[in-house]
Amino acid sequence: MYRIGIDVGGTNIAMGLVDEAYRIIRKKSVKTGDDCSPTRMINVIADGISELIQDIEGDITLIDAIGVGVPGTAEPDTGKILYANNLGFEDVPFLTELRKKLDPKLAEKTFFENDANAAAIGEYITGDYDVPVFVMVTLGTGIGGGIIINGKLLRGCNYAAAEFGHMSVNIDGCDCNCGRKGCFEDYASATALIEQAKEAMEGDEGKDSLLWQDIKSQDELDGEKFFKAVKAGDKTAKKVLAGYCDYLAEGLTNIINILQPDVIVLSGGITRAADLFLDKVKEKVARDVYSRDSRINTEITIARGISDSGDVGIIGAALSDKM
Amino acid sequence: MYRIGIDVGGTNIAMGLVDEAYRIIRKKSVKTGDDCSPTRMINVIADGISELIQDIEGDITLIDAIGVGVPGTAEPDTGKILYANNLGFEDVPFLTELRKKLDPKLAEKTFFENDANAAAIGEYITGDYDVPVFVMVTLGTGIGGGIIINGKLLRGCNYAAAEFGHMSVNIDGCDCNCGRKGCFEDYASATALIEQAKEAMEGDEGKDSLLWQDIKSQDELDGEKFFKAVKAGDKTAKKVLAGYCDYLAEGLTNIINILQPDVIVLSGGITRAADLFLDKVKEKVARDVYSRDSRINTEITIARGISDSGDVGIIGAALSDKM
Repeated sequence: MYRIGIDVGGTNIAMGLVDEAYRIIRKKSVKTGDDCSPTRMINVIADGISELIQDIEGDITLIDAIGVGVPGTAEPDTGKILYANNLGFEDVPFLTELRKKLDPKLAEKTFFENDANAAAIGEYITGDYDVPVFVMVTLGTGIGGGIIINGKLLRGCNYAAAEFGHMSVNIDGCDCNCGRKGCFEDYASATALIEQAKEAMEGDEGKDSLLWQDIKSQDELDGEKFFKAVKAGDKTAKKVLAGYCDYLAEGLTNIINILQPDVIVLSGGITRAADLFLDKVKEKVARDVYSRDSRINTEITIARGISDSGDVGIIGAALSDKM
Repeated sequence: MYRIGIDVGGTNIAMGLVDEAYRIIRKKSVKTGDDCSPTRMINVIADGISELIQDIEGDITLIDAIGVGVPGTAEPDTGKILYANNLGFEDVPFLTELRKKLDPKLAEKTFFENDANAAAIGEYITGDYDVPVFVMVTLGTGIGGGIIINGKLLRGCNYAAAEFGHMSVNIDGCDCNCGRKGCFEDYASATALIEQAKEAMEGDEGKDSLLWQDIKSQDELDGEKFFKAVKAGDKTAKKVLAGYCDYLAEGLTNIINILQPDVIVLSGGITRAADLFLDKVKEKVARDVYSRDSRINTEITIARGISDSGDVGIIGAALSDKM
């Protein structure tokens, strides 16, 4: 049997046919281009599903489930995306309309889920975690996440739980796009790290920094260049990273004091450089958590379930009806 | 059938015989005095249990369970209190030793639980909530709480979950006794409210404030006097309360963005004056939560389960094996 997973992003829709060993055996990716309307996206997805099913000779009885991960609040009862900031969607009957485009036998096996939740489910299942309280924290443009308790995703009363990025850690801090001040993601997302580095490049010390190597303006700085400078021992880059570690640790400590999860899994592109910062984060958390005298404490680790992070979205979406 | 609930505090041990309608039919309270050693406390509790059982003619077969609520981390597997700040306990085999003092038939029905968790269980059961995600936040000397998901208490990997008071909301803020900076309880506990009022009494405006009525030094200010001044329309007191509402709302908004509970129940002595501040808190939360566009949002309410707040500890402890 097979599943189909679809990862809907702001610029790209990635789709895959997934086998029972959680491998993607056929993949398809479509740039959304300028037209990100719900109608266009639904057509792209419906066409993609048809194509993927051709790979199994059109035999829809071999399909167990079709899951769509969306960057917004997915309300299963109504089939609506209530809100998706990056897509500009509000109250869009996305799943309902998509189902209409599919063979009724497929339509009834089609569901959707918030993309961060889907990724948490994908990691939990493929990483073979077997713990009562599992938390995934994704460090990307913002900070998202998922909470799985006793093998069940915590969706919350309105399917919007686990917005860790919008926990304020500094109520007098900088303005966040959510309307609050000092949210965790403004300090500890991958974007925030690069912003902190760009700022440091301006300073007296930063002007001679290796961060300037190969680039002419700060806008050219990215994660790869940043971590290259850290590896080369650049003072400014290391200082920025140390500050970032403190911020990340603060937010994780808050999450631990509230949930005391068995494990917090960090994911997102910057975790590829985790050997440069994870130990520092762990040390600060261990010093700060309220439960520091306990024999057992939360394990903080890097996603291990799906090796290619680009595939997390597809596999997570494909599996998300499992919780 | 009956249950016995025991609420262990830093200065007082309250015990009660509880019937099936969750009424306390016999109560007993013992000041701990200067000797708060584990041995002394265990003796006081064992004697109290004997006395309460005499009320049912010593018939121990009528006892369903004996629950002890402790202000610390209770580890059921080992019967130990791992840490109880207010009692000065560290790694004390409290439950194990208590059981030794009891008739074996009672000992096997005796258990313990963190007091804030016990209170959450008591409120959840007696208040007849039937929601998937329930959160209780207790505003007292500090801020404690409990999380109940699908009818099961979330204890966390080390039985220390739901320490909402030690979520930092201001990483550059004041020092907290937990070693971190700017924890929620430093701004939004009942103690914090009174501290904020005392500070305001010093200011130019505060010197003429009604907060000074009937008292000679700030140290005499308590919750009752504070809310009396608010009710009388005192400008300084109202300003302090408005600031406090903002702080409380910030922490609650964080909890909502993470858990999206169906309900957050506020408890603690100051909620008796909730008519003076709850609406303001709700308004700010409604403006700030990430899910503000959802049709459904977290209900914030005041504990309704057990009318006399002094009894929450006893009844909660008595019921805490139910989760």
